[in-house]
Amino acid sequence: MSRTPSIILGIDPGTAITGFGFLTDERGDMRPLDYGVIRTPSTDPLYLRLVKLYDTLQDLIKRYRPDAVAVEELFFARNAASALSVGHARGVVLLAIAQSGAELFQYKPAEVKQAVTGYGNADKRQIQEMVRLLLGLDTVPQPDDAADALAIAICHFHSARLRAYS
Amino acid sequence: MSRTPSIILGIDPGTAITGFGFLTDERGDMRPLDYGVIRTPSTDPLYLRLVKLYDTLQDLIKRYRPDAVAVEELFFARNAASALSVGHARGVVLLAIAQSGAELFQYKPAEVKQAVTGYGNADKRQIQEMVRLLLGLDTVPQPDDAADALAIAICHFHSARLRAYS
Repeated sequence: MSRTPSIILGIDPGTAITGFGFLTDERGDMRPLDYGVIRTPSTDPLYLRLVKLYDTLQDLIKRYRPDAVAVEELFFARNAASALSVGHARGVVLLAIAQSGAELFQYKPAEVKQAVTGYGNADKRQIQEMVRLLLGLDTVPQPDDAADALAIAICHFHSARLRAYS
Repeated sequence: MSRTPSIILGIDPGTAITGFGFLTDERGDMRPLDYGVIRTPSTDPLYLRLVKLYDTLQDLIKRYRPDAVAVEELFFARNAASALSVGHARGVVLLAIAQSGAELFQYKPAEVKQAVTGYGNADKRQIQEMVRLLLGLDTVPQPDDAADALAIAICHFHSARLRAYS
């Protein structure tokens, strides 16, 4: 058994805005710990934006010391330009995770939808509303990237429980 | 005037293999200092490969303390999957450069070709042969990624001279 509570971090990487969501898993009871976004100034050159993303994420990881970090697998992107942009941010995010010693888990978008809503083709609003309900929040976490990151963390919470009992 | 000699690093980023080439610029005299590639094991998960790339590049930057680092601008890639893969490596490379305090310069592929061969549509072999000649080497640097990285460094060397005298 892992220590109680264990802490799960979900991340939705992007160069302009990266969503993050921390959950605690206290003997199967899921609670939101912190969530939000890391924004980087569009007026800064890319390499300085990546430093800001990396430093802020490292600070968050040091503060909450997650046991597990979950990100979405990316098999494709709308086009090569957006894939390159997401790739820059995702590379820096994966680096910070690896350096922290936390275990990395990757889930397909359909797995995240299935875990959160019970339905692999759920739309964005359905997912966000379920994130709100599952975490007992009064309103949907804003901005969307924070809710998306929490959805990925919830997906890992469910998968880890399934693995623990199988 | 910058201190003499100044040191230029050219980088050709990739997840599997990243080329690097260090040149010294001693009062307008260009000399190769070190070049080669950083390989990451294909059997390792991506996030550990990014750590290996980052750590090795950081070690090289600490050893040679480049004043300027040059990479190619990327506007497109063959497809979204390869763009994402290059993006991961490029994000980590840009982070290491930014953290080192070296100045980053980006050049278009056609600018690199023009600077090295005098011809913006030169092919890969022509570029590599000119790299060999310009640096007074007996053979073309191997593997190709190392020669490509030296070509980018040579491009910066020429651009910096043009800027200095204009």
